[in-house]
Amino acid sequence: NIDNLTTSTDDHSDLQSSINSILEKTYYNVETHSSESLDWFNVLVAQTINQFRLEALMSDNIVHSLDDFLAKAELPDFLDQISITELDIGDDYPIFSNCRITKNPLNPQNLQAKIDVDLSDTLTLGIETNLLLNQPKPLTACLPVQLSVSIVRFSGCLTVSLISVNDEGITNEEDKSGKGTALMFSFAPDFRLEFSIRSLIGSRSKLENVPKIGSLIEHQLKSWFIERCVEPRSQVIRLPSMWPSRKNVREPVINEDNNTNANE
Amino acid sequence: NIDNLTTSTDDHSDLQSSINSILEKTYYNVETHSSESLDWFNVLVAQTINQFRLEALMSDNIVHSLDDFLAKAELPDFLDQISITELDIGDDYPIFSNCRITKNPLNPQNLQAKIDVDLSDTLTLGIETNLLLNQPKPLTACLPVQLSVSIVRFSGCLTVSLISVNDEGITNEEDKSGKGTALMFSFAPDFRLEFSIRSLIGSRSKLENVPKIGSLIEHQLKSWFIERCVEPRSQVIRLPSMWPSRKNVREPVINEDNNTNANE
Repeated sequence: NIDNLTTSTDDHSDLQSSINSILEKTYYNVETHSSESLDWFNVLVAQTINQFRLEALMSDNIVHSLDDFLAKAELPDFLDQISITELDIGDDYPIFSNCRITKNPLNPQNLQAKIDVDLSDTLTLGIETNLLLNQPKPLTACLPVQLSVSIVRFSGCLTVSLISVNDEGITNEEDKSGKGTALMFSFAPDFRLEFSIRSLIGSRSKLENVPKIGSLIEHQLKSWFIERCVEPRSQVIRLPSMWPSRKNVREPVINEDNNTNANE
Repeated sequence: NIDNLTTSTDDHSDLQSSINSILEKTYYNVETHSSESLDWFNVLVAQTINQFRLEALMSDNIVHSLDDFLAKAELPDFLDQISITELDIGDDYPIFSNCRITKNPLNPQNLQAKIDVDLSDTLTLGIETNLLLNQPKPLTACLPVQLSVSIVRFSGCLTVSLISVNDEGITNEEDKSGKGTALMFSFAPDFRLEFSIRSLIGSRSKLENVPKIGSLIEHQLKSWFIERCVEPRSQVIRLPSMWPSRKNVREPVINEDNNTNANE
């Protein structure tokens, strides 16, 4: 359904020469070109994340989304409902670097950018639940559990490409616009996702650390990530048209003599 | 309606310190950082344009769009209906370079990337119409006109930023998803857009070049561009969420033993 995955072998040499022509006309030699920095991109992304954090602080929409997610999550039968007690949305930003174009080994007519991503930040989620002991019979005991899960480090190699998409496969109900461009991205399997997990179990008089629960949570979070965007899986996100249109025009409001320009 | 345009002066110093924090944490000094290359981006964009051209060659959808556009265009009363006789969609690619982060002078709490864009390509549109002479009375004469308009060069400085958008202003009927991120871009007024225009008028026995018609077309095309994305006007295009979701997952189809993975 994605054009670059369904090319027949007949077109192979044509596409190969078209790839070579693209690289020539953009002055890019995949063998010799040095990798490029993305400092400008880091600034723009950081600004967006900062805005997102400011808005999250003003409302509690993240807590609501997470509560919904946890309410729907499939939990093992020894865990009670989970409620959120602590949330830290971090104060640092991801650093993208070392961007280079490579040929896709699985699909030689597709050029992709590989980018290193590094995030050293503390994103903490604190939760409270009950550990249900179902042996020898259901609900033999119900022990309160406090958990604090922090993501302290993420690093990985991100692969990005722009692909052409058509009606099938990518189009969903809201988006019937047919052909267009999509951003495809995935992370290499050797990513690092490090957690710091504290788990306290029992009543206040007798707290004990239970590493088992921590590793269960860690496994769940890593699986969530792997199932969505770690090779061979990719995320394919259709991009809106960048063609200048009148409906997307914005101009600054002119305040002098109360003369405001139309903003539509 | 756009958050960064409606900030009250009370928040100004807060936002200024938050901008400084962003720049510090992304290791970017706007005064001293050298500009960055975008060669990788040129390759990805070229690949998309190449795909677009391949698809345009397979169907004649560009001719149809242009025919529709010309049919709706407001023409001066001395021009008859315009039909397309020639179309060259080019074979070169835009080159983006020299990317640097600057503070927005009109809005100091917004950081933007400035990027030089250069395109040397020949994009030609050949049309046929009739010149209607309405003096001394309507339709005194009707002279066949052949025109060929080529864009041979574009260069300009592109300003790009990511902004936070909310419900009002940016949301249209199809997109009721509320807050999100938008790409804002515009070109500096000193852009270069060079045309090569040939105009032939009259019957085959007596052809004459009429520069007036050429400059009229040139003016129309430049106005189209200026009205949409030249400062102080910007294009604001809402971006889809990049958060990994199950519905956007794609994985390669496995052909061995006819075992195909679900592609959604």
